[in-house]
Amino acid sequence: MRLDIAYDGTEFSGWARQNGLRTVCGEIEEKLGAVLRTPLQLTVAGRTDAGVHAAGQVAHVDVPAESLPDDPSRLVRRLARFLPKDVRITRISRAPQHFDARFSAMRRHYEYRLTTAEYGADPLRARDIVSYPKVLDLDVMRSASARLVGLHDFAAFCKRREGATTVRDLQRFDWERDGEIFTAFVSADAFCWSMVRSLVGAVLAVGEGRRDLGWVDELLRERSRASSILVAPAHGLSLVRVDYPDDADLAARKDITRDIRTLPEGCCGD
Amino acid sequence: MRLDIAYDGTEFSGWARQNGLRTVCGEIEEKLGAVLRTPLQLTVAGRTDAGVHAAGQVAHVDVPAESLPDDPSRLVRRLARFLPKDVRITRISRAPQHFDARFSAMRRHYEYRLTTAEYGADPLRARDIVSYPKVLDLDVMRSASARLVGLHDFAAFCKRREGATTVRDLQRFDWERDGEIFTAFVSADAFCWSMVRSLVGAVLAVGEGRRDLGWVDELLRERSRASSILVAPAHGLSLVRVDYPDDADLAARKDITRDIRTLPEGCCGD
Repeated sequence: MRLDIAYDGTEFSGWARQNGLRTVCGEIEEKLGAVLRTPLQLTVAGRTDAGVHAAGQVAHVDVPAESLPDDPSRLVRRLARFLPKDVRITRISRAPQHFDARFSAMRRHYEYRLTTAEYGADPLRARDIVSYPKVLDLDVMRSASARLVGLHDFAAFCKRREGATTVRDLQRFDWERDGEIFTAFVSADAFCWSMVRSLVGAVLAVGEGRRDLGWVDELLRERSRASSILVAPAHGLSLVRVDYPDDADLAARKDITRDIRTLPEGCCGD
Repeated sequence: MRLDIAYDGTEFSGWARQNGLRTVCGEIEEKLGAVLRTPLQLTVAGRTDAGVHAAGQVAHVDVPAESLPDDPSRLVRRLARFLPKDVRITRISRAPQHFDARFSAMRRHYEYRLTTAEYGADPLRARDIVSYPKVLDLDVMRSASARLVGLHDFAAFCKRREGATTVRDLQRFDWERDGEIFTAFVSADAFCWSMVRSLVGAVLAVGEGRRDLGWVDELLRERSRASSILVAPAHGLSLVRVDYPDDADLAARKDITRDIRTLPEGCCGD
């Protein structure tokens, strides 16, 4: 069963289940398990950190065939009453054969938002827009971001985890501006831990004039985490979409990703 | 001094100061008074109820001339650090002569938002979008709303207050739909208490098929509050803009509104 999920990360200690803490995964496993009357374990596309939001998170869970109603939107409506307002299951569907929310994912899309307004973020958007009252040069930020796009070793941008590669294919990193609100669009096959916020933090340093474009080029030559990068605050970040291959290609995709790399995005609780 | 104000009404007991309760007016008077080192009293354009938001609220306050810095944006930045995140002074300016946030106002613009999505409101918008998982007929809602536009006695839609007229000039009442999100645009010279939420509640009854257009016509003939109208929930409502006349016309406008009616929108704490 595939779940499409949205959440306001403000009051969660991230996605992954942790004893004694309120997490998105823990909340969903508890409520969905109660409704389906069976203990269950979710596998997720992007394991987000504390404070990070999602509009298009995807998870899968194996359940007895009889648990999935013919009309899954009945289950969506039922869960809408059980779940707290800051997490929503927006869609439930029968997962195609070989679908794995984590290993089948081809691409993750994130957005990062901040405002340079001197009064701060609009109150109704303060949960997902960072107040950043500085003068930013959009053109320079776009140039810096463009240099980072491509297949690179992003070690400088990764909090290293044992044995995980830091080579990633950054497919999009661009900025748009709407009045005082800046939005970064960041897409890759996968991201290592803290990578999106480190990319944003590095580009902000250039946009403010604290660093130059040459510094960005040097970061791509680093082979370990660069302490000169300030990681941008979590609450500006949202996972907006995850791309999967067509059903027919799922089996092949699963085998490829399992073989060639250990993705940092993991199951609930791992 | 004129203040432009935005707030997330969720955790406020409305605008007006009330002893022991957290109110928008109380919060601003306290923080602004501390920064300017003088007790002060705000006068506001639209005194919103508990849970109602504002993107374009306007207030004025009389302060000693020396309290207003030559560059008011310095004061905006200073207040941004003192105020809680759910209320922002977005702009501070020297008020023109005869400017009165309440009596000079020509028109107030409100928006009301709800979603018919079966999973409810998106988590990051759940504070200002009401979950309304029903089938709504947009065309019928537009017809019902159009019948209410104009100069009418809106007694059926008003919680009556002593001595206040319920005649209002409803200048706009229209709906737009974006996917599952419905937005009502409601503008009038002024509104009586609970009027916007009663207008929305009445039109929703028609949009769902619980009432017909004839019922709407009858409501305009009522001379007192109609108990058949369900008042829509507060958190879908935002005050988005207040219109004022050109500076040169302010003195005339102030005299007119003072003479011919008692507006329900009042000062902080009254």
